[in-house]
Amino acid sequence: SRHPPRGPPPPPGGRVGAAPMQPTLSFSPEILLRAQGRAMGLKAAIFDVDGVLTDGRIYIGEQGESFKAFSTLDGHGLKLLREGGIEPIVITGRDAPAVRRRVADLGLAHARYGVKDKLAAAEALLAALGVDWADVAAMGADWPDLPLMARAALAIAPPQAHAEVRAIAHHITQAPAGYGAAREACDLMLVATGRYGELLQSHLQTLDGGR
Amino acid sequence: SRHPPRGPPPPPGGRVGAAPMQPTLSFSPEILLRAQGRAMGLKAAIFDVDGVLTDGRIYIGEQGESFKAFSTLDGHGLKLLREGGIEPIVITGRDAPAVRRRVADLGLAHARYGVKDKLAAAEALLAALGVDWADVAAMGADWPDLPLMARAALAIAPPQAHAEVRAIAHHITQAPAGYGAAREACDLMLVATGRYGELLQSHLQTLDGGR
Amino acid sequence: SRHPPRGPPPPPGGRVGAAPMQPTLSFSPEILLRAQGRAMGLKAAIFDVDGVLTDGRIYIGEQGESFKAFSTLDGHGLKLLREGGIEPIVITGRDAPAVRRRVADLGLAHARYGVKDKLAAAEALLAALGVDWADVAAMGADWPDLPLMARAALAIAPPQAHAEVRAIAHHITQAPAGYGAAREACDLMLVATGRYGELLQSHLQTLDGGR
Amino acid sequence: SRHPPRGPPPPPGGRVGAAPMQPTLSFSPEILLRAQGRAMGLKAAIFDVDGVLTDGRIYIGEQGESFKAFSTLDGHGLKLLREGGIEPIVITGRDAPAVRRRVADLGLAHARYGVKDKLAAAEALLAALGVDWADVAAMGADWPDLPLMARAALAIAPPQAHAEVRAIAHHITQAPAGYGAAREACDLMLVATGRYGELLQSHLQTLDGGR
Repeated sequence: SRHPPRGPPPPPGGRVGAAPMQPTLSFSPEILLRAQGRAMGLKAAIFDVDGVLTDGRIYIGEQGESFKAFSTLDGHGLKLLREGGIEPIVITGRDAPAVRRRVADLGLAHARYGVKDKLAAAEALLAALGVDWADVAAMGADWPDLPLMARAALAIAPPQAHAEVRAIAHHITQAPAGYGAAREACDLMLVATGRYGELLQSHLQTLDGGR
Repeated sequence: SRHPPRGPPPPPGGRVGAAPMQPTLSFSPEILLRAQGRAMGLKAAIFDVDGVLTDGRIYIGEQGESFKAFSTLDGHGLKLLREGGIEPIVITGRDAPAVRRRVADLGLAHARYGVKDKLAAAEALLAALGVDWADVAAMGADWPDLPLMARAALAIAPPQAHAEVRAIAHHITQAPAGYGAAREACDLMLVATGRYGELLQSHLQTLDGGR
Repeated sequence: SRHPPRGPPPPPGGRVGAAPMQPTLSFSPEILLRAQGRAMGLKAAIFDVDGVLTDGRIYIGEQGESFKAFSTLDGHGLKLLREGGIEPIVITGRDAPAVRRRVADLGLAHARYGVKDKLAAAEALLAALGVDWADVAAMGADWPDLPLMARAALAIAPPQAHAEVRAIAHHITQAPAGYGAAREACDLMLVATGRYGELLQSHLQTLDGGR
Repeated sequence: SRHPPRGPPPPPGGRVGAAPMQPTLSFSPEILLRAQGRAMGLKAAIFDVDGVLTDGRIYIGEQGESFKAFSTLDGHGLKLLREGGIEPIVITGRDAPAVRRRVADLGLAHARYGVKDKLAAAEALLAALGVDWADVAAMGADWPDLPLMARAALAIAPPQAHAEVRAIAHHITQAPAGYGAAREACDLMLVATGRYGELLQSHLQTLDGGR
């Protein structure tokens, strides 16, 4: 149900100083089992931009592409992924100023723009990081992402990805691209590698500031 | 049914000077009971921006974030909430000029931008207003909102909020964020505190101008 | 079914010079009966803007509202309505340059912007046109539209309109606001007044250019 | 199911150097049979812009139309269509700089803007290309597209097209306009003419770069 049962109303005065929360995010056993077999040693995750970090729409004005729309849920997810020890990598076939801004704002360390040969770009980047395909996840939306997804240990696609991309994906997100699909992918990786719970606790402690 | 029964066609000439309307907005008894236990003395309501007053998407151009999309339904709701004696408060982790404009246009008196520690900001604001958490509602979308929602008497989330946020919410709106979710939250608070009907009547009297 | 049966493939060579089409647009008998009783003598139709001709979202940048998104389906509908002898009128509580541009582009003759008292504005306009409420339709989205909808012979709302507005509407469109809701309203008025078929035929003759 | 069965987890190390993929995109036998009867000799495909290559929304600011939102899925599809020997043609009743930019970016050779008489424009273009209506597909969204769709061997519409346009279409796409509807149309044409599989293989060989 969309309204999770919360029991009877709490006593007046709210729940100030409530005990640390248990994480409630969950994936189905089938999804988790499949992901865990693949996500054990994940060290990096490659994300396409259009159709993965956006809904695949490009807003074009008189001067060419004017902006892209990104999700704040996804942005938070990419930061958490990095905190959790899985390096987010952005590889995109287009080169829009908006993407460079977004990558900089999120503090992502690894991104390649206007890439014609995504496989070569990915392999060069992974070699520099000393990471094997066996420890890499990839999330894509269209044909140019297929070589990365075929090699990655864990391949993820949003529901609007092209049929060939969905067919090769190990997990298709519930959330649409541009509206939290990448966050769901990050959550899945963090849950499957067992790092989600402690990340949540540590954030809540900081957010609660010892109160 | 989506086509509420209206009976036979009215006599020619329309319904000029019709009698004051009874409010038809309604929530299920379960939702109302839960909300009423929590909303009795509401004096303030804290709203996050991205994913609460917007659909969570940020439009980024060459110069950085260029704009946000807000809902006119939500804007009207925030004004009505204030009229109804529940002070709307905006607390956001980002600081976009668009939000400052929107807050000014709506005439909201209390807003904090670029907030790293939402709990500290909220408690300072509530102290200045002389309001306790027991009389506060909070509507959030992601982890940084959890400390506020855990303390608020009434916690509300839109359906696209992160799983941890939805889990802690007392009410999850039907309307999506950025498309009336905040209006639904305002309506619920006004109905639960018994102020909705008179607000509607008073507006209709003004709108009808004594005709 | 979404794939209307088309019979066997046509002979090679296509259907050049096909016979004039019969209109296929249709509404359910219940909707039509209700609308026909109300739409018989329609001479004008009043449209709100935000949430009726748009999806209710306002895009705000550093300088304030930067643009609105309108539907080309709706634009065509407003032109057809006028051709069909029902004068489209725009009355909006906001005053955005985008709306003035849209109204000018569509060649609409009657529009009022930044209106505080919609009822007074509508009655002045209708008086100038010599039209009674009995011959007027109104399409609205929020409380300020209620006095117009209560007086109009035919009141229409999009599915995302506020609950009070939906409750007073005689017809709630299937198409969402900003994505053809106003076109559906125009179609309904033209069908209910018996003018739809000849409009379609006359357009097809022009479009087919005697070929 | 949305999670295509993938069998047991692969051996550690990923699937580097995987064998060429079999295409997995598919259409129902009914759709394919109908399309194959019509698409046999397709040499060109005419696309409307608003409501076909976009979701039908036009973003209007103070200076008039400011931009349009296009889908990267569609863009890739139009390029593949051309590679597959079916010439994409754009004919639009509006003339927005955004469309000229998009057409140029995609390298499309044939486009007509601000067209009042789409039939005359199409016939002049087809004559210049030496192509008959029997070898043409057309995808449209509103009344002005009807004469083209009535003559084309294969007529396609997105689900949000006007009722008259949907009624005349041989195929209505699953994907919404502006979110991959044109890509689905391109895929259908390429599958129906038997060119899809080799296009995919040839792209994968290039993308895999002999690795």
